[in-house]
Amino acid sequence: MDSPPHAPSPDKQRSLVAALRGFLPGDAVLFREEETRPYECDGLTLFRQLPMVVALPETEDQIRRILQLCHEHKVPVIPRGAGTGLSGSALPHPDGLLLSLAKLNRILSIDPRAQTATVQPGVRNLAISEAAARHRLYYAPDPSSQIACTIGGNVAENSGGVHCLKYGLTIHNVLRVRGLTIEGEAVEFGGLAPDAPGLDLLALVIGSEGMLAVVTEVTVRLVPVAQTARCIMASFADIGEAGDAVAALIADGIIPAGLEMLDQAATRLVEPFANAGYDLDAAAVLLCESDGTPEEVAEEIERMSAVLLAARATRIQVSNSEAERLRFWAGRKNAFPAAGRASPAYYCMDGTIPRRRLGEVLKAIQALEPKYGLRCPNVFHAGDGNLHPLILFDDADPDSVARAEAFGAEILELCVQMGGTVTGEHGVGVEKLDQMCSQFDRPTLDAFLGVKSAFDPAGLLNPGKVVPTLHRCAEYGRMRVHGGNLRFPELPRF
Amino acid sequence: MDSPPHAPSPDKQRSLVAALRGFLPGDAVLFREEETRPYECDGLTLFRQLPMVVALPETEDQIRRILQLCHEHKVPVIPRGAGTGLSGSALPHPDGLLLSLAKLNRILSIDPRAQTATVQPGVRNLAISEAAARHRLYYAPDPSSQIACTIGGNVAENSGGVHCLKYGLTIHNVLRVRGLTIEGEAVEFGGLAPDAPGLDLLALVIGSEGMLAVVTEVTVRLVPVAQTARCIMASFADIGEAGDAVAALIADGIIPAGLEMLDQAATRLVEPFANAGYDLDAAAVLLCESDGTPEEVAEEIERMSAVLLAARATRIQVSNSEAERLRFWAGRKNAFPAAGRASPAYYCMDGTIPRRRLGEVLKAIQALEPKYGLRCPNVFHAGDGNLHPLILFDDADPDSVARAEAFGAEILELCVQMGGTVTGEHGVGVEKLDQMCSQFDRPTLDAFLGVKSAFDPAGLLNPGKVVPTLHRCAEYGRMRVHGGNLRFPELPRF
Repeated sequence: MDSPPHAPSPDKQRSLVAALRGFLPGDAVLFREEETRPYECDGLTLFRQLPMVVALPETEDQIRRILQLCHEHKVPVIPRGAGTGLSGSALPHPDGLLLSLAKLNRILSIDPRAQTATVQPGVRNLAISEAAARHRLYYAPDPSSQIACTIGGNVAENSGGVHCLKYGLTIHNVLRVRGLTIEGEAVEFGGLAPDAPGLDLLALVIGSEGMLAVVTEVTVRLVPVAQTARCIMASFADIGEAGDAVAALIADGIIPAGLEMLDQAATRLVEPFANAGYDLDAAAVLLCESDGTPEEVAEEIERMSAVLLAARATRIQVSNSEAERLRFWAGRKNAFPAAGRASPAYYCMDGTIPRRRLGEVLKAIQALEPKYGLRCPNVFHAGDGNLHPLILFDDADPDSVARAEAFGAEILELCVQMGGTVTGEHGVGVEKLDQMCSQFDRPTLDAFLGVKSAFDPAGLLNPGKVVPTLHRCAEYGRMRVHGGNLRFPELPRF
Repeated sequence: MDSPPHAPSPDKQRSLVAALRGFLPGDAVLFREEETRPYECDGLTLFRQLPMVVALPETEDQIRRILQLCHEHKVPVIPRGAGTGLSGSALPHPDGLLLSLAKLNRILSIDPRAQTATVQPGVRNLAISEAAARHRLYYAPDPSSQIACTIGGNVAENSGGVHCLKYGLTIHNVLRVRGLTIEGEAVEFGGLAPDAPGLDLLALVIGSEGMLAVVTEVTVRLVPVAQTARCIMASFADIGEAGDAVAALIADGIIPAGLEMLDQAATRLVEPFANAGYDLDAAAVLLCESDGTPEEVAEEIERMSAVLLAARATRIQVSNSEAERLRFWAGRKNAFPAAGRASPAYYCMDGTIPRRRLGEVLKAIQALEPKYGLRCPNVFHAGDGNLHPLILFDDADPDSVARAEAFGAEILELCVQMGGTVTGEHGVGVEKLDQMCSQFDRPTLDAFLGVKSAFDPAGLLNPGKVVPTLHRCAEYGRMRVHGGNLRFPELPRF
């Protein structure tokens, strides 16, 4: 989708830049097109928009002054971490300020005894684990983008990863967030106690996609590095049986450290790049990991193997060395780059479904491929029922782009119909605004808007994201009833 | 504290009763003093107040009509489960309607495959586990009151229990809540997916103490009954060393299924009643449980024993039968009743502190006993740093009551000073309103009030609880600076 034909007023831009330069160094305020172009989109490249101004503060005090200035002049503020988000939460606003938190990248403290780390929002996810490694601790949530993505962005999106079935999402691994409201007031969310008194604002701010506050400090929980880990690679002749095997493992009381699935289209897509040794004849391959002490792992691998075989696995292979374990994972972890090499572009969906309907939904997605004339391999967090269908398309061909969007929208609607949701861990952003109308009824959407207003009555923090307006849902309802073919409408003019 | 000398206007009461009887059976509307007296307090008996009217609906539709009526006539509504709460969250309002959810006590469905149960709010905590037992599943959070307390009340207070270190609080075990706003609108909080799209209103409503919505349905997560469990009873010669042993276990990566401590005053208090076999010469006794498969338990018990001995445990005893394990727990589980038998009354505090300061805080509390002339044994969730000092006092002696309140308030202030909080799992209610002024700064309290207003602009749902007003904090600040002796002020007139 091209940038909407909208440019900010030069006067407004000039006066904002001048005011910002009153307290920020010159290179921390960007406004020329060649400077702001790198910020026009996040990981969801289907949507692009130049911001009026980009600000790159280095301290909480600078952020406070930026927010106070924007609040005073009614300038929308769009916070951004590393820009790896996949739902367009960091898409700029044409009349707004893009607030990059990238320079707030210091690890403030690590407390090995309390097993916590306090960091600034621009610290990369993996950098926390690297810094904690000397205490044999790490930060558990591991999104695929963990080399690049920042903890501030993880908080905004409530990010997960391949280990979140056992170790939880961001919400389960963050103890405390300090943030600034649009008025520049500091608010403490959560704390070091198991349950903070009063309303649980910590859970509210985690996953709020920059709508409520700008994160300035995060205290995360660290967990001990497991003594050892081993992985089972299991083949299935039918994708429904693979789905049932996942349910059987959970029903047996096993919580694998990782439980991921690749369908045949995905194994065939990634194998040439990753040489993971996947069974290319299998309809689905399941990766099932155990971690802990060597004794615990040996016992759990045995239990898992028994359950998988009873659930009609056609082949089972257990990693016998760390190198082999990493090789099993190489295919799963490189699925997105592999898709990028196999196709000019890919569009990663993020719906969730009840685990018991995995087979049914995967077959329905396969059946949609000819309708849209696009391939759609699947790699996903099977244990969570969190799908990541990768729609392969050609971004130079507008018709292919439109078909990819429509395909994606139909997949999301399918997830909702199956009793699932439109997003498991990538957030709503601008991408799933319409599907939020299907997901929630009006009183619930109004509750979201009510809470948003409590923090930001003027609607300046990341406007037009996450919660659709009444008008938008009415439009979407008409389109679904009368339009026949589902597709994304134009981005709202905010 | 006596009831404030306030009675509702007879006219208002008469017209509300007449309107309620338009759609409720006669025995579901109580207003005579002898009928409403049982509702004058919850488990925090220090505060008492007769409600204007008590309503006992049986269906969600009846609740909706009650709320719409109260909203229209600006009548405060105080929801109540079993009334076992310990912070006065269900204390009636003199001009308000006490809304008992006790009759909504049906288990709507149990899905053994998805490991969930959907129940009405008045279902007792233990009744869920009893109903799930035939699938070898149970509901993990186990507050001491689990025989009596209801899931609706657990949601309101975000209740914990002795197993919450490993299995989590209510928030970690509830997937979905259906509730009605004060206007009678149904809102769905959360869902069956790992992370619901949009703002995390589920976490917000859990622990909101009836301020945001009336819970009408709850879907909980069930977990498989462990194959076996064993418990270590460890003695320590010094309470600080016992605290350090707790930190050492966690630092070793062990998450015991239960990790509870009793100080010497507590073991000596409960032993005559419970015959648990506690070491009465020890300064502190630690109960440390492992559950899982027999192999997992054997291995974990061995690791735990090694860590405890290295942490200077003077004696270690491991349960060798289920009967012995239950005997070890009998003392801990019966501590509250034992306190009730040893003293005319007891006042259970609920502060949390960082685990590393356990020894220091327990010694400080002991040092306060002579100041107030009251005994204060301690039984508590050591793994969570969640203290339950039991102040023993005489409720027939107003001076003893006042000293108990002041002692409790000083303990809570101490917890905040140590970097902890005023409540771990019992909620704020009316009890800790003042200490919330110490716990949080004004912007954070204002954020609480903003969210409250988003759901309930007229402030009719459980008014005067949880979040102190600006005025109240100003008063409390003056009192602390000038008054010398900390004590609870009179309850606000709402």
